[in-house]
Parts: sequence; C-alpha cells; structure tokens
Amino acid sequence: MLSKSEINLITSLKQKKYRFQHQLFVAEGKKTILELLNSKLQLHQLFTTTLEFDVSDVLQTTITAKELNKISFLKTPNTALAVFKTPKPQPIDFSKLIVALDNVRDPGNLGTIIRLCDWFGVTDLVCNTETVDCYNPKVIQATMGSITRVNVSYLDLKDVLSGRKEIEKFGAFMDGETIYNMSFPDSGILVLGNEANGISKEVEAQIKKRITIPRFGSLQATESLNVANAVAILLSEFKRRTNFQNL
Amino acid sequence: MLSKSEINLITSLKQKKYRFQHQLFVAEGKKTILELLNSKLQLHQLFTTTLEFDVSDVLQTTITAKELNKISFLKTPNTALAVFKTPKPQPIDFSKLIVALDNVRDPGNLGTIIRLCDWFGVTDLVCNTETVDCYNPKVIQATMGSITRVNVSYLDLKDVLSGRKEIEKFGAFMDGETIYNMSFPDSGILVLGNEANGISKEVEAQIKKRITIPRFGSLQATESLNVANAVAILLSEFKRRTNFQNL
Repeated sequence: MLSKSEINLITSLKQKKYRFQHQLFVAEGKKTILELLNSKLQLHQLFTTTLEFDVSDVLQTTITAKELNKISFLKTPNTALAVFKTPKPQPIDFSKLIVALDNVRDPGNLGTIIRLCDWFGVTDLVCNTETVDCYNPKVIQATMGSITRVNVSYLDLKDVLSGRKEIEKFGAFMDGETIYNMSFPDSGILVLGNEANGISKEVEAQIKKRITIPRFGSLQATESLNVANAVAILLSEFKRRTNFQNL
Repeated sequence: MLSKSEINLITSLKQKKYRFQHQLFVAEGKKTILELLNSKLQLHQLFTTTLEFDVSDVLQTTITAKELNKISFLKTPNTALAVFKTPKPQPIDFSKLIVALDNVRDPGNLGTIIRLCDWFGVTDLVCNTETVDCYNPKVIQATMGSITRVNVSYLDLKDVLSGRKEIEKFGAFMDGETIYNMSFPDSGILVLGNEANGISKEVEAQIKKRITIPRFGSLQATESLNVANAVAILLSEFKRRTNFQNL
C-alpha cells in the first residue's frame, strides 16, 4: 500500500528543487535498481510489484501495478521504483583525465556521457551548475547504472579551470587543432559545451588548447556532432594515445 | 485551411505502412525543412503558420497554430510541417566504406548514426529490414538534415554480405580484436547490431573480422556502448587511419 505522503514525496522528486531539498532521487527498472543496490548508494525505499529484490522488509513496500503507474516517471512502468539517497560528491582527482560539461541541457546526452566516462575509465565528470542535474530520472535511466561509478560534481566551471594553472585544459571547438594531428597528455580537463551554442565565453577564456574532430563529408554540411558522440570520439582518442602503441 | 483528407493523410504518415503506401514522409521544424528543400528531395506539400519559405504557392498552405498542432508529431510544434516524396534508394557504392545496421530499433539512434555517416563522409548506410525506417518522423528529426546526404538502403543484410566476397566485412562485437591494434582498409562494410542482443547469428556468420572498442574502466562493469557512440568511435578510427599520418 502506498500512502498519500509517499506518493507526494516520490512525484516531487521529478523536480530538481525537491531532489535537492530531500537529498533523494528515483531510479526505475530492475536492471538499473540492481546496479544501484550493488553500489555504495544508500536505499531510502523500494516499491515493487514482484518482491524479487534481496532487500530488508523495512525498506521494501509491495505495491500494485496501478500504484506503480501512479508514481512512475516512465510511460510504460517496469516492476519496481526505488528511491535512493543522493550521495555526497567525492573530491575530484585532478591527476587523471577529467571530462567537464558547460551548459549541457539534454538528460539523454548527460546520461550517455556518464556511461561513456564509465566505459573509458574516467572517474570524474565536472558540470557547470546550468548543466542538467545527474539525478534527473531521465539521466539516471540513460546511465544504465554507470552513475554509481562516475563522480559527478556541479561547480563553477570557470573557477575550477582558472584555479588549476598546472593542468592542461582542452576544449572542443569547430576551429581547433585536428585531434589526429596533435599529442595528448595522460591527464587534463576536456571541456565540451552546449550543442547549439558551444562553450560559453567565460569558460572559453580559461581554455589553452582548442581541439576539433575533423569533418570528412565532401559537402562539409553537417552542422555539428551530438555532444555525446563528440565525447565518445575524444575519449577514444585520448585513451588510445595513452594506452596503445601507435598504429 | 486544412482539409479533412489532408489531416488524415498526414497523421497516417506516422505509420510505416502508410509512408510506404503513399511514398511520402513528414519533416518538421524550419531548419530541417530548409535543408530538405535545398536538396534533391521533392516537396509534396508544405504547411506553415508563417509563410517564410521560398516555395511556390501551389505547394504551400497557410495554416493556424491550432491546425499545425493537429497534424504535428511533436509535443511542441514548430512553425511548419512539410510532406516530402520518399526518394528512390540509389545504387550502393561498394568501393567505399559502408556502415550496415542489424536490427537497430531506436529512432534516435538511427537518426544520430545517419548524422555521423554524413560527418565522416560515409555516403551509404545499409539497414536490414527490421531496422527502424529512416523516414520515421523521429529519425528525420534526429538526422538534422543529414538524411539528404546519406543513401539509406533497406535490404536483406545476410544476402548483401554473402554476395560480396571481395569486400572486407567488419562486425562490432564484445570479444573481437582491439581496434587500436589492428589495421584498417580504405573500404569495407562495418556491421553493428542491436544494442541489447548484438549482431544476429545469420549476419554474424558472414562476418570475417570481429572488432572491439576496448573498455578502460577498472571495474569493467559498463555493459555496452550505445550503438550510435560505437559508430562514432569506429568511424573516427577508420577515417583517422586512412586520412592522417599515424600519431
């Protein structure tokens, strides 16, 4: 049975301000919930129609499909919805390669980028405060569990960059050096901007190295790469250079 | 003014069978429509609230925002919706690098892959008949106009591969040769499968070279890459090898 206050709490978590106020977020779908249960994240409450999770009774509530429908953020709800406590961001390890995002608004793109960081062993993702919240239910869904393995920090990106003089700062632009012709270090901060507007002026001012993924079509008409695809290509190139003999 | 039969025709084009029957498809949004108007595609009819397009009066109908709302496939409709004639697929140029998709179902992924082909100068995309239709409105939306520069053919993929003995066939698998350690030819067919199930058995039987994008995370827990991200990384690697001095 679902109480009225539980329904109100869960549905409020669709909004960033209530996620922040309660320090809670929602995950849906068996696979994602299992990944989150197997991580350091703390479960607040699990609502399930099937009772198939190995979770103490105190933290688990059996509900009907109709009740799940009421609290789910999905068009076709799964068999479970879990509320987790938002973890505290961990200190950033500046000795490694870091990805930074400036004004990325699309939840699907952020989720895919978190999944890419996880694939390529990037443990720190820094977002400016205008980038979509990583505990947005659509982001959680798109990360496919990778949110448990990437430390996402929301900070003033300009300050982070200007305060780290010793670190190489790369930014993805349309007019930078071709990535295939340049050398890459083992560490550094790789900044990507908003798909429509690119990197903001104040962040751009802190970037030393402008880099570009070259375009090959004869017409050169494709306007831009999707930001998650750009991250995929850049991380592949960084990791290839620092982990494989050149071919 | 919109006629009842126009409304019926346009709304029917959300379904593949009616797109096929009428050989028509829908594009929305000023930017996408302008790209399509500037291509070889033939306009069937344009419906607009603003009359800002340089199109003959016969092919253009002024409608109200309310009428646009009725025919639009978008949650927040733009100022125009255009119906174009489906172009005939062109012959495939097997002397170049070709991308092939096996059972890719997500329209957003297909749209992004078409955009990536365009960026990397891949002019032929071959899809098996179970792959989502490229004239699906969500695909058209996601291609951002790139659909006009990539020739998409729907064929029996197994037959295409088995009939081309002379061509190198690469398939993306979890257990193939690491892409950073192998050599790449100038041409060939690069096959990617469904995100959840991979490449189907019958298509797999035709593939000579199994390739893999290595995973770098210490936990090795990320289950798979999004198929569009995999295409991004593989096309970047193919094009780098054949167009740039190795670094």
